[in-house]
Amino acid sequence: IASAMSSTDGPDLAEAPEERCFLSTAEAAALERELLEDYRFGRQQLVEWCGHASAVAVTKVFPLPALPRKQRTALVVCGPEQNGAVGLACARHLRVFEYEPTIFYPTRSADPLHRDLTTQCEKMDIPFLSYLPAEVQLINNAYRLVVDAVLGPGVEPAEVGGPCTRALATLKLLSIPLVSLDIPSGWDPETGGDAEDGLRPDVLVSLAAPKRCAGRFSGRHHFVAGRFVPDDVRRKFALRLPGYTGTDCIAAL
Amino acid sequence: IASAMSSTDGPDLAEAPEERCFLSTAEAAALERELLEDYRFGRQQLVEWCGHASAVAVTKVFPLPALPRKQRTALVVCGPEQNGAVGLACARHLRVFEYEPTIFYPTRSADPLHRDLTTQCEKMDIPFLSYLPAEVQLINNAYRLVVDAVLGPGVEPAEVGGPCTRALATLKLLSIPLVSLDIPSGWDPETGGDAEDGLRPDVLVSLAAPKRCAGRFSGRHHFVAGRFVPDDVRRKFALRLPGYTGTDCIAAL
Repeated sequence: IASAMSSTDGPDLAEAPEERCFLSTAEAAALERELLEDYRFGRQQLVEWCGHASAVAVTKVFPLPALPRKQRTALVVCGPEQNGAVGLACARHLRVFEYEPTIFYPTRSADPLHRDLTTQCEKMDIPFLSYLPAEVQLINNAYRLVVDAVLGPGVEPAEVGGPCTRALATLKLLSIPLVSLDIPSGWDPETGGDAEDGLRPDVLVSLAAPKRCAGRFSGRHHFVAGRFVPDDVRRKFALRLPGYTGTDCIAAL
Repeated sequence: IASAMSSTDGPDLAEAPEERCFLSTAEAAALERELLEDYRFGRQQLVEWCGHASAVAVTKVFPLPALPRKQRTALVVCGPEQNGAVGLACARHLRVFEYEPTIFYPTRSADPLHRDLTTQCEKMDIPFLSYLPAEVQLINNAYRLVVDAVLGPGVEPAEVGGPCTRALATLKLLSIPLVSLDIPSGWDPETGGDAEDGLRPDVLVSLAAPKRCAGRFSGRHHFVAGRFVPDDVRRKFALRLPGYTGTDCIAAL
């Protein structure tokens, strides 16, 4: 992993022909652009795949048959950007998989994609919290796990404003397991700066491919949800990732 | 099944409170309208789920480990309407699952959804046939199976024109297994009229819920791909369908 990381030092792909399993923020953005612009994938498609795969990852780590009825609960905390949209789709798929998600989505995006994902969740009777309890123990008692869909790479905590920043501060104090989507919210996607002081997720679901900071993830389970990345794109970005089995949408790293 | 069918005789839902497992064409259209307008699901989402689930159904009946290398081939025949869009998404997912799909899509839709799905397949190097060989034996020899995504319910064969009608005539003569998406193309979705003279699929993948004509399906495998239909909608349409297991997107009927 160390040598794989050192091979990604240059942002210029031509200088980094060696295979690696992490993407810089610029590379991740370029990969997404390629999927949207060249392959003509829709944002709705990408968000749906990522949300579905994130929910599948939750089922792997917290399998339903092993959970008592009252422990099927999950709190999904969504930010206003794309990471939050994936969180909303994840919550809906958790509901379909017979978990009991609750959503906290304090800063709502005006993007029609977010609005539609929100309506889908509301119509499916997924509760939305109007505020996050300040008393951490209330959250620890009420939920089996928390899904962190607050901040993706390329979004600064300062940009998303008060409620999300306060939510992050609360998430840091929780003792129940944390599942972070793409990156642990608040971590520097390149360096993993804040890895010591910031969120310490038990589960990380890397979307498309792991970002560099994932090298500092020390939780129990790391999955990649990137089966939708075509082989040619994987080769172009020199990604070396575990293979997917059968019809699986995630692979353990 | 017979009593379930008789309970769907009235198109007015209020008159048919008894549970059943088939939808009339009008009910299927009403269900889809509900998903799109009330739940604000996107067509891209619905087509993606249906195409993915159809590909998963293929993997169940024709598991890859059981197929010699040269028998991973599938011909996907797509019409110009929504059924064809699902076929395009199915072909892409088959490619992701390491099958070797080839697409015949003679009457192209100008709908941006279809155009994007086509580009996705082209960029993933899925071959498109410019014509369907008239010599049936060539198709029998070249492909392990055919996916029929020509006509969905509510589309008359006459509407889709020459190439699709000719393709259906060819499909009738094939001896390799046929997988029909939603309904066997050309069947009357209500009565299954043409069930004797028309296509005789080995596998039927009902999308959202089975249409009435599925009662006359006599092939080996019938799946329903409708896990995305929310519980409330299932109850509203008094649908009684098998449950889905774990994270499965299809259920065998």
